[in-house]
Amino acid sequence: MQKRNATVAVIGAGDYIGAEIAKKFAAEGFTVFAGRRNGDKLAPLVAEIEATGGTIVARSLDARKEDEIATFLNDADAHAPLEVCIFNVGANVNFPILETTERVFRKVWEMACYSGFLAGREAARLMTARGQGNIFFTGATASLRGGSGFAAFASAKFGLRAVAQAMARELGPKNIHVAHLIIDSGVDTAWVRERREQMWGKEALNNPDLLMPPASVAESYWQLYSQPRSAWAFELEIRPFGEKW
Amino acid sequence: MQKRNATVAVIGAGDYIGAEIAKKFAAEGFTVFAGRRNGDKLAPLVAEIEATGGTIVARSLDARKEDEIATFLNDADAHAPLEVCIFNVGANVNFPILETTERVFRKVWEMACYSGFLAGREAARLMTARGQGNIFFTGATASLRGGSGFAAFASAKFGLRAVAQAMARELGPKNIHVAHLIIDSGVDTAWVRERREQMWGKEALNNPDLLMPPASVAESYWQLYSQPRSAWAFELEIRPFGEKW
Amino acid sequence: MQKRNATVAVIGAGDYIGAEIAKKFAAEGFTVFAGRRNGDKLAPLVAEIEATGGTIVARSLDARKEDEIATFLNDADAHAPLEVCIFNVGANVNFPILETTERVFRKVWEMACYSGFLAGREAARLMTARGQGNIFFTGATASLRGGSGFAAFASAKFGLRAVAQAMARELGPKNIHVAHLIIDSGVDTAWVRERREQMWGKEALNNPDLLMPPASVAESYWQLYSQPRSAWAFELEIRPFGEKW
Amino acid sequence: MQKRNATVAVIGAGDYIGAEIAKKFAAEGFTVFAGRRNGDKLAPLVAEIEATGGTIVARSLDARKEDEIATFLNDADAHAPLEVCIFNVGANVNFPILETTERVFRKVWEMACYSGFLAGREAARLMTARGQGNIFFTGATASLRGGSGFAAFASAKFGLRAVAQAMARELGPKNIHVAHLIIDSGVDTAWVRERREQMWGKEALNNPDLLMPPASVAESYWQLYSQPRSAWAFELEIRPFGEKW
Repeated sequence: MQKRNATVAVIGAGDYIGAEIAKKFAAEGFTVFAGRRNGDKLAPLVAEIEATGGTIVARSLDARKEDEIATFLNDADAHAPLEVCIFNVGANVNFPILETTERVFRKVWEMACYSGFLAGREAARLMTARGQGNIFFTGATASLRGGSGFAAFASAKFGLRAVAQAMARELGPKNIHVAHLIIDSGVDTAWVRERREQMWGKEALNNPDLLMPPASVAESYWQLYSQPRSAWAFELEIRPFGEKW
Repeated sequence: MQKRNATVAVIGAGDYIGAEIAKKFAAEGFTVFAGRRNGDKLAPLVAEIEATGGTIVARSLDARKEDEIATFLNDADAHAPLEVCIFNVGANVNFPILETTERVFRKVWEMACYSGFLAGREAARLMTARGQGNIFFTGATASLRGGSGFAAFASAKFGLRAVAQAMARELGPKNIHVAHLIIDSGVDTAWVRERREQMWGKEALNNPDLLMPPASVAESYWQLYSQPRSAWAFELEIRPFGEKW
Repeated sequence: MQKRNATVAVIGAGDYIGAEIAKKFAAEGFTVFAGRRNGDKLAPLVAEIEATGGTIVARSLDARKEDEIATFLNDADAHAPLEVCIFNVGANVNFPILETTERVFRKVWEMACYSGFLAGREAARLMTARGQGNIFFTGATASLRGGSGFAAFASAKFGLRAVAQAMARELGPKNIHVAHLIIDSGVDTAWVRERREQMWGKEALNNPDLLMPPASVAESYWQLYSQPRSAWAFELEIRPFGEKW
Repeated sequence: MQKRNATVAVIGAGDYIGAEIAKKFAAEGFTVFAGRRNGDKLAPLVAEIEATGGTIVARSLDARKEDEIATFLNDADAHAPLEVCIFNVGANVNFPILETTERVFRKVWEMACYSGFLAGREAARLMTARGQGNIFFTGATASLRGGSGFAAFASAKFGLRAVAQAMARELGPKNIHVAHLIIDSGVDTAWVRERREQMWGKEALNNPDLLMPPASVAESYWQLYSQPRSAWAFELEIRPFGEKW
């Protein structure tokens, strides 16, 4: 592996998508700064990446805290120039409107939208100073569609998409690629598999073409990163080939 | 004027759009419940509506407070069945991303999105019990487009639109018409006129075809209210005929 | 009925939507110019409208023929100023892509898109000369979504929507209201009822909330016509309240 | 260069985008089947590709002729399995609506939409038989927006996008990747440079960040081709980083 003098920050480095992004960029020679609520849970990822010669720094991070985000990204940038920042915090919930408490509505927004704004802004601060960079946000079906029962989640995801759009329009001409990756399907996680089995029975899991492998999300981010600045996409909407849409 | 046994709640009853909505529905025989931050400022509207034989109750209302919203709508409904609830709180700001403070981002969201969720949910609570009703939200160009400098405002307006969509899909089959009115132009207010004059000079004001009269917004809400349930629109996007789009 | 010195042209005056539009505008005092492939079939509509004191001229019209469209609209305008032109020709077909013949693809386009362009342009010619007018197009779910099996139909409906948009942007500032009405549901016709019964059984017809009554489409067009020019909508997307979307 | 047992068909192999696509896929080991109206003009491209050891077959092709398209693709597939078909025929024109003749409207549609349908369908015929393949279409800003003066061009491009969508939904589950690449900017060609210079003066050309290099379009197609089937995008919308949107 050829090491690069560059850091990727993964905010919301969960066991699936976040971990795959970390592994992909580590394999490409990036230093990975990985943050999640409970940093201890990053131990297996650290072990896996270090075993293959990669470099990773794991941190506990509450992405809703302005100072924590700023410190996290500044530290990342101090290690090696912050080349890519990927915001990947999720907060999918589903409640009928009358059962959507103000507490849930606010918390989902803080996790999925407000913290994305903080991460994007602080990354932009470091990147505009250097005149280049990449800021990517993970979106979902609910980024484009407010389905029944999704008032809280869709509201946060719509809001995050607006942040990404506004930043893309402002920062694109400053050579910073801001992009929004919409995953229009379930992601292949233990939790999703369990839920689908409950809803549709075991057979629903036999079709591997209906779930998004976390590694494919990481590949998609790598594609966005690889785009020449003369042909940037703001949005990439991906789904497994068997998915109805 | 033929009085109706029905109330319209106007949340965000400002001097322009809110006031015109109140006057239109009062003229159609509705009891108007009008709320705005400083209820004292509603005195001229109350005088005007009462002078024409209309009925209006004016209240100070902080729409970001769950209990205030609930009380306001319950009181409205106690007066006469809550037939229509219109959420019309605005919070347009424009800052470069690096100058968008977390305080601004949060406050704009609380005013333009979170309080809309509270209003919509509490109205839905009363209306689902009765099996009918209308819940309308005021949107803007920024509901569909995150322009440069509009991260905070567009994020809140996108988020509000998602709330409206999710509610429309859930509540439509329950005979509650949820709609989102997008005003794709400047509204003809003293503030907008002043700002345009500063930006483009006095001549910019000579063209009356480029500003949305507040009374036309009220007419559009009346159109939405008048739609038969066999042909509801969720979204109405309006602009003055001279506007570029 | 108060007669107006104004004509509405209905191109594609079929038994359902077209007939209801004709009746609505006739009832509002318009002279109706109604055209459909086989003009003889308009006899019952003529009888019904004349029985209520309305004025209607019925014509055989192949909307795919430039000269026929021009003559039809010129004659309408000669009778009384052409105030409204509504293009309502449908051509819904569904074939797997491999079974979509070039003949079908071309014919659907000629009926649903090309003839709409001709109608719009010839109406615009008369209306720009007078400095006012209304040009409306009937759209469908397939105007926004290319579903599986709908390559031909969606292609024509997307194309018609583009014509409407381009005309709206060019002609709006010239005081001509161009609008596109999307009917996002089945319309309540004998043919649709029969098809649904075959697909889903008789019970599917018991729910009246899932079909769009033709008269409601006519009401929606009347709403579009009634909008003040200070608050025009380009697009109105309607569905019955029980419809999933 | 490692040769592949696979063919890419480029329909509309013009001097810029089409030529770059051909060179990119040739460099990746594909046999290129290149068709354009006047096949003689392909001589320089053939020379260039053959000089680097690539394989290319150049043909005169009127993409509006069903039998010519079928023969072209069948021949391509006979040479080596048709792995990718890229439809790249353009037809950008701009006329006020009243000056848009029926001849122009029809011809633009035949070139930019109808021939795309023929190409897509014939490619699908070969690919469904084999159970895999890639069918890509070149779109433009006008695929999503009917601008003033663009009734003919936008109508054709909207229509082409509908064909692509319908095919993607039908063929995706059959392991055929159908995608639509929207180029939201001018492409860097002699003609565009000349026109911009006329409109905005020579300085407009000094900013290289506002034109899309044809080679970047080819790279974008390569990205679409490289996506794993577990994470396909239907649409990719690209623009140079300096472009306003």
